[in-house]
Amino acid sequence: MNKKELTLGIDIGGTNSAFGFVDRNGECIAEASIPTLSENPAEDLFKRIKDKVDEIYKDLIKKDYKLLGIGIGAPNANYYKGTVELPPNLKWEIVNIVEISEKIFSLPTVITNDANAAAIGEMKFGAAKGMKDFIVITLGTGLGSGVVVNGELVYGADGFAGEIGHTIYDYNGRECGCGRRGCLETYASAPGIKRTVFELLANSNNPSELRKVSFEQLTAKMISDAALKGDKIALQAFDFTGKVLGLKLADSVAHLSPEAIILFGGLALAGDFIFAPTKKYMEENMLNIFKNKVKLIPSKLTKGNTAVLGAAALIWNELEKMK
Amino acid sequence: MNKKELTLGIDIGGTNSAFGFVDRNGECIAEASIPTLSENPAEDLFKRIKDKVDEIYKDLIKKDYKLLGIGIGAPNANYYKGTVELPPNLKWEIVNIVEISEKIFSLPTVITNDANAAAIGEMKFGAAKGMKDFIVITLGTGLGSGVVVNGELVYGADGFAGEIGHTIYDYNGRECGCGRRGCLETYASAPGIKRTVFELLANSNNPSELRKVSFEQLTAKMISDAALKGDKIALQAFDFTGKVLGLKLADSVAHLSPEAIILFGGLALAGDFIFAPTKKYMEENMLNIFKNKVKLIPSKLTKGNTAVLGAAALIWNELEKMK
Repeated sequence: MNKKELTLGIDIGGTNSAFGFVDRNGECIAEASIPTLSENPAEDLFKRIKDKVDEIYKDLIKKDYKLLGIGIGAPNANYYKGTVELPPNLKWEIVNIVEISEKIFSLPTVITNDANAAAIGEMKFGAAKGMKDFIVITLGTGLGSGVVVNGELVYGADGFAGEIGHTIYDYNGRECGCGRRGCLETYASAPGIKRTVFELLANSNNPSELRKVSFEQLTAKMISDAALKGDKIALQAFDFTGKVLGLKLADSVAHLSPEAIILFGGLALAGDFIFAPTKKYMEENMLNIFKNKVKLIPSKLTKGNTAVLGAAALIWNELEKMK
Repeated sequence: MNKKELTLGIDIGGTNSAFGFVDRNGECIAEASIPTLSENPAEDLFKRIKDKVDEIYKDLIKKDYKLLGIGIGAPNANYYKGTVELPPNLKWEIVNIVEISEKIFSLPTVITNDANAAAIGEMKFGAAKGMKDFIVITLGTGLGSGVVVNGELVYGADGFAGEIGHTIYDYNGRECGCGRRGCLETYASAPGIKRTVFELLANSNNPSELRKVSFEQLTAKMISDAALKGDKIALQAFDFTGKVLGLKLADSVAHLSPEAIILFGGLALAGDFIFAPTKKYMEENMLNIFKNKVKLIPSKLTKGNTAVLGAAALIWNELEKMK
């Protein structure tokens, strides 16, 4: 009798790590989450995941499911080496996660960073189904990107390709966590739009409900809520964010000529507030041959845990390549 | 008896079109050049090339050579469609060159633009041998680029990827032929460095032999000759050109994480004058994870007609993919 095939997607986060059994169609059959506890070695996390997985898998086996492999999304992950290297928010230094996972699970394992996993997730289950050339931009606490060319994720020579968040918009601009100035992610990200709001509050006399909020308290959600109510500062902040993003995406298009750019993550949920100006400035700044060709669309990985789906898509993709 | 296999590389230029028989090792066995005469239809050019090719091929057949296919480099060429579209310096509008060539030669034909052909040439015969991820930048009357990822040229969704010359350095900057402002190629190209010289002549009181030369007369070669003699304006012009190029190449690295960036074409012949500042500013402006990893090297397609070699490499590459 034919087994129903599954992969395990694992999303390693600073606080919790989530995982789920995902079928070939991107349906998540079962999922769970445990604390990451990165003060302990990574082996400890994987042993605890294994215990939980075994518990769930017992039932799945009875229903004729079979687990084929493991995909992992993690910060600063290197696809080639299987490592996670000096990850922010995790206390590990350089750990070979793939080695650990393959030892503990005896199953083929692949790892990549969150944005790359999101890109493969979109390709297999989401907005990029059937596309061979596209870019996923994740707008969260930073700006991550996953680039797909000829149907393959671009890892580059050293496994770290796709750092569009660290292309530079203004060489004399805002301080970036990377040590340089003016990186795209200091403008187009949740903290980026906060910084823009504070600049606008400083430079204009427009009244705004955001004048009541401290920098630490302010969230991207508050900015979209204010924009919904017509708050001028909030609207201007979205326009400027879209402008910077649109200008830099025009450069990405010049490199790669993608069929689509997919916006993913918290800030993308602001819908037209972010899509409309991004599209406008991207079109205005693209070379003629690219104008009105490149779709700017939202993620379709909206059901369930998208990071787990992306990680599962990663290993599905590898398993298909191995055939 | 085994035939010695050859391909024909054709470089279509505004004034002349050159072609050559090239073997699998990048050795050009025979070559010739005829006027392009683009006021006539493209068929006319290909019939005249065919006549000349037949003449040479007669002798090659006696020596057991066999022609397998044709690669063409041309401005505004589209690999997917086989067309040349509104090429600058050619009077054709939109012509399907591949169709014409396959009809006249009855041999498989592929076309791409000059910079892409140069990239494949470097991969098969030149400085990128054995590399799977690299970028070729051609510094001539414009700035062209060919991007290779996973051993494949990046054409993108519509066949026009690799327009790094039209990424933007300064949104309020110099007028570009493309109708926008501040494109990289308005700084990093032969006309770009001329413009920089004239800006420096205007802004400084430094004496310079270049003060004697009109804008129309000035060439990139004169600027390197002046730099060799220690002319301050010429040296500053190279420094600024390398700065702009280095800054923007740091963005390209963030997208693609290449093993190497290869500089090709007239301005690249200025050697250290252009390589040293480009490398310096590229390193200064790259994200930490990329620093001191990306080679910046000169083309090794230096023997014979490099455009013909590139075009021949293009079809060699296709023939190998078909196997």
